Amino acid sequence: MFSASDVRTDLALEAHAAVRGTGPQDIPGVTVNEERGPNVLVTRMEIFTPQAAQLLGKTMGRYVTIEAPALRRRNRQLQEEVAGVLARELAALMNLNPWDEVLVVGLGNWNATPDALGPRVVGGLLVSRHLRAHVPPELANRLRGVAALAPGVLGLTGIETGEIVRGVVDRAAPHAVIVVDALAARSIDRIATTIQLADTGINPGSGVGNPRASITRDNLGVPVYAIGVPTVVHAVTIANDTLDLVASQLQAQEPAWQPLAAMDRERKHSLISQVLSPAVGDLVVTPKEIDVLIRDISRVVAGGVNAAMHPAIGPEEMAIYTDA
Amino acid sequence: MFSASDVRTDLALEAHAAVRGTGPQDIPGVTVNEERGPNVLVTRMEIFTPQAAQLLGKTMGRYVTIEAPALRRRNRQLQEEVAGVLARELAALMNLNPWDEVLVVGLGNWNATPDALGPRVVGGLLVSRHLRAHVPPELANRLRGVAALAPGVLGLTGIETGEIVRGVVDRAAPHAVIVVDALAARSIDRIATTIQLADTGINPGSGVGNPRASITRDNLGVPVYAIGVPTVVHAVTIANDTLDLVASQLQAQEPAWQPLAAMDRERKHSLISQVLSPAVGDLVVTPKEIDVLIRDISRVVAGGVNAAMHPAIGPEEMAIYTDA
Amino acid sequence: MFSASDVRTDLALEAHAAVRGTGPQDIPGVTVNEERGPNVLVTRMEIFTPQAAQLLGKTMGRYVTIEAPALRRRNRQLQEEVAGVLARELAALMNLNPWDEVLVVGLGNWNATPDALGPRVVGGLLVSRHLRAHVPPELANRLRGVAALAPGVLGLTGIETGEIVRGVVDRAAPHAVIVVDALAARSIDRIATTIQLADTGINPGSGVGNPRASITRDNLGVPVYAIGVPTVVHAVTIANDTLDLVASQLQAQEPAWQPLAAMDRERKHSLISQVLSPAVGDLVVTPKEIDVLIRDISRVVAGGVNAAMHPAIGPEEMAIYTDA
Amino acid sequence: MFSASDVRTDLALEAHAAVRGTGPQDIPGVTVNEERGPNVLVTRMEIFTPQAAQLLGKTMGRYVTIEAPALRRRNRQLQEEVAGVLARELAALMNLNPWDEVLVVGLGNWNATPDALGPRVVGGLLVSRHLRAHVPPELANRLRGVAALAPGVLGLTGIETGEIVRGVVDRAAPHAVIVVDALAARSIDRIATTIQLADTGINPGSGVGNPRASITRDNLGVPVYAIGVPTVVHAVTIANDTLDLVASQLQAQEPAWQPLAAMDRERKHSLISQVLSPAVGDLVVTPKEIDVLIRDISRVVAGGVNAAMHPAIGPEEMAIYTDA
Repeated sequence: MFSASDVRTDLALEAHAAVRGTGPQDIPGVTVNEERGPNVLVTRMEIFTPQAAQLLGKTMGRYVTIEAPALRRRNRQLQEEVAGVLARELAALMNLNPWDEVLVVGLGNWNATPDALGPRVVGGLLVSRHLRAHVPPELANRLRGVAALAPGVLGLTGIETGEIVRGVVDRAAPHAVIVVDALAARSIDRIATTIQLADTGINPGSGVGNPRASITRDNLGVPVYAIGVPTVVHAVTIANDTLDLVASQLQAQEPAWQPLAAMDRERKHSLISQVLSPAVGDLVVTPKEIDVLIRDISRVVAGGVNAAMHPAIGPEEMAIYTDA
Repeated sequence: MFSASDVRTDLALEAHAAVRGTGPQDIPGVTVNEERGPNVLVTRMEIFTPQAAQLLGKTMGRYVTIEAPALRRRNRQLQEEVAGVLARELAALMNLNPWDEVLVVGLGNWNATPDALGPRVVGGLLVSRHLRAHVPPELANRLRGVAALAPGVLGLTGIETGEIVRGVVDRAAPHAVIVVDALAARSIDRIATTIQLADTGINPGSGVGNPRASITRDNLGVPVYAIGVPTVVHAVTIANDTLDLVASQLQAQEPAWQPLAAMDRERKHSLISQVLSPAVGDLVVTPKEIDVLIRDISRVVAGGVNAAMHPAIGPEEMAIYTDA
Repeated sequence: MFSASDVRTDLALEAHAAVRGTGPQDIPGVTVNEERGPNVLVTRMEIFTPQAAQLLGKTMGRYVTIEAPALRRRNRQLQEEVAGVLARELAALMNLNPWDEVLVVGLGNWNATPDALGPRVVGGLLVSRHLRAHVPPELANRLRGVAALAPGVLGLTGIETGEIVRGVVDRAAPHAVIVVDALAARSIDRIATTIQLADTGINPGSGVGNPRASITRDNLGVPVYAIGVPTVVHAVTIANDTLDLVASQLQAQEPAWQPLAAMDRERKHSLISQVLSPAVGDLVVTPKEIDVLIRDISRVVAGGVNAAMHPAIGPEEMAIYTDA
Repeated sequence: MFSASDVRTDLALEAHAAVRGTGPQDIPGVTVNEERGPNVLVTRMEIFTPQAAQLLGKTMGRYVTIEAPALRRRNRQLQEEVAGVLARELAALMNLNPWDEVLVVGLGNWNATPDALGPRVVGGLLVSRHLRAHVPPELANRLRGVAALAPGVLGLTGIETGEIVRGVVDRAAPHAVIVVDALAARSIDRIATTIQLADTGINPGSGVGNPRASITRDNLGVPVYAIGVPTVVHAVTIANDTLDLVASQLQAQEPAWQPLAAMDRERKHSLISQVLSPAVGDLVVTPKEIDVLIRDISRVVAGGVNAAMHPAIGPEEMAIYTDA
């Protein structure tokens, strides 16, 4: 019997696939809806029972996953298409009034390349909350009030990020918060090619239970949306997948090797720990060109958020106000 | 009659010198005390009457100015000496109990070299507020709880920096706040060679009156100390000084030119505006090697703050915990 | 009598204007041709006698100056228009055969913001010399062989840049070299809004005579083109202009002040030295937002060079191969 | 039968250990000598027959490996100790006359964190070749002429790095060249904790045979020394090690599983390809804190090279001339 906890992934889509396996049956408490375009696949999933949430290891809520594997080839036209899809899905998820102000929080550490997605996205936003008093009314009326913050990680600030965000929300009083963060996926192909939106906020450690670290509606008092992009795969996932694959292949060929296929989780973990020792948990796998991939996908996400926040500002005008 | 408002400087020492001029008399409401070493001059000034504050254009309070012109030559030994002086003066000014927690705020824009001092200093701090629960007691007892934040400028966040800091202070509840910022001096020689400490906090626009932008005890409810280093001279200062010098020299040589020396402030401003048009206010003068100077002085300030905050941690151990 | 040597500018256009002054007469040995568009002014100048070269303090050759003051407002559409003009003028100046290979050299120091233009432009190029063996023939036929190098400055390498470039030219054997460099202008308005092309190569110190530092056809054996953008004004220029302006205004108003207007160059230099002491020559004036301006204009120049080098590659396809 | 070609490592020490396995016997054609200190292990290996070179997959020559696992804990004192060991071993390997000039080449791509070691080391060097004419004789006599270059990778320049270096060597005529490069190790523990020196120069692809890419005495005409530090482990190594470990453990427990242990190389490669598809060769494993580790070790290497090149300059004076 398989459980999602074997798979270290921040993507609801991957957790769902892992639990469902190859079986045909649906998982109770989860609805899934796919919209497939020539270059982009959008999957809208809702986890609506606590049982399903526990089974998948994900918070109850709505998740939208945007997959565009060809982003890896750095196609500018596809980048703009994905930004447009992100804008459309984010706007639908948030359903804001035109006058609602929004705070965008870029999580992560700007000193660690794969963790710098959040700060980089924030750096590409059209921040406008302070502008509206100083620009001509015809522009002000077309601009949503957007604020932005890249607070840094606990190791840089000494303060739980959830606490910093809550303090700023208390003073700036936005109607909603968007948090942008780098994720870990199970599959290498997803690095910088998949974007996950959610209306759940962020629970570091998934309910392990440090409430000051959470960035959720419960903690902040306003709706919190999350945008995440996988930028790493944990090394332990690679080792785990290697074991699973060899087990299944051997078993298929020679039924006598049943015992290997049934290798229990404990033994697997012990084996993997020996291979990756002594730094098992902190090892990540990335493509060599990760610096470039993260720069590209950060622009895509910033472009999508900008378009969702300021639908009246066209791309040409947007470029004047941002560093896109 | 001269007024400090002719001089665009953030240094109380320069404002004082400008008002006092070459005359021998003291300025009422100001005490000045100098301690001169072979390489470093420390001047402790107190502005203790509202009249003196208005005359100098500076908030009432205590100011400590550390001058070490030879820092420009990038001498490592002198850098360490200045960091030591800064540590000593800062500790004396703040007079903390060992268990008092401190939040250090690095003001400024990390995307603009001369304005990046604050964020760079914060990046070099031994941030410890979160560590104390996780390190051995013998280390925890020697570490003060220090938190750090580089919130960015209004143009990056859309939120007044004073509001962000207040929100974080409300949540993290430090006993005191230190703000670090890049300053403008009158004299080029001061760039990256002078450090000003003050117990006044920071009033952007010096009382022009945006209370949400202030980072002061009034605004935050806890003592606020400021550390500033000149990183630019305004171009208008260069033009102004050129005019003053030519006027005084000509007058000395040929008394008939008295009218030029008496050139009124309005005409001077009009002349300067023509030279610097159209960007008068936003032009800054820096040495070519400003990137290197700012990196060096940021290390000096971070080193001084670290030593003041954690007197029980020696330099060798400090290096393990910081990126010095 | 005025001479160009009073003005510290790297722009032939400014040297020409300074020498010509307000008089109506043409300068012998120089032809000037202007093409004025709604947003962009292109001036093509040729200096074709040694006397004119000496008078202007510029090498004999062709100079094309592209002026677009509105670039300061960061208009994306104008940026693309200027890149297009640059591509057209560079292609006309170089007049290459489709199979000619080109080496682009980005001069300057990546550690000093205003001097980083050259390295940044090189970072945005579609470098293709090595690709042609590995891409499909239909792409290879549309790509010119372009190589690129950002060698760093003498202080970083210990080797005269001209020597490094010559060594690489000897091995890579390009048909032509383009050098990209940050310039000093006389006027602040030109910072990041003016682009100068020339077929003269680069003579640091303008003939002062360190042949190993030159990057010219004489030194390299192949044609050398220069692309320069002003990123600073020397502080001495600001002081000088202030003096000139005050002198001319005073003289106009009160003829008795003739002596001031006639203030000789020596006295001016002495005054300026006192104002800017001790760092006269190394002080530069920039707008506060110089980091952003240099990033923008570097993209414009890289885009123009890419379009000139690879006319068969459209903007969409270009984006795939570059970091534009 | 095992061969070194199964292990993707750039370290001669790891290749030697893999070939030797657990057996007691020495490998003919290789001498090994260890010097073990409390914190640092130095292994001097010489490969002196073509047969041994082929067996190990390494060029004939002398290799010195410096191992200091505790570097991972960022101990400043140990960093200085390792820099001292590096200086001593490099000086012994190169055996220079005091007047010999040296060119240091930092290989790698500054845009890709784990590949940026070479450029970062070069940025920390005391470059002096150009200074000697301008400094007081008593300093000039104590400075070796050191030049430095970070040419970038083929994808950035379009020119084989070996060609660039040869062109520069032709012009600058150093007596010897040191190349600094990031390596791949087999073991994660070695990342940023092991330094390899060699007198072999660098053969990308280990003799696969692109002579223009080599940086060797044969190619340049002067002695070439290499300094390398592992900054990644290939993901394929992790998968491979996982397979090997499970095979050996299973076999030990249940002899019937002999076939798995004997799984041939082809099947292993096929399995690994499926796990890592589609990017097998370009996936790297790093610790999360790789940005910080590379910054630290780059300083250690730069410090060691500086001390080896300029033995008469003490650490205090060194700091004045470098950005250490």
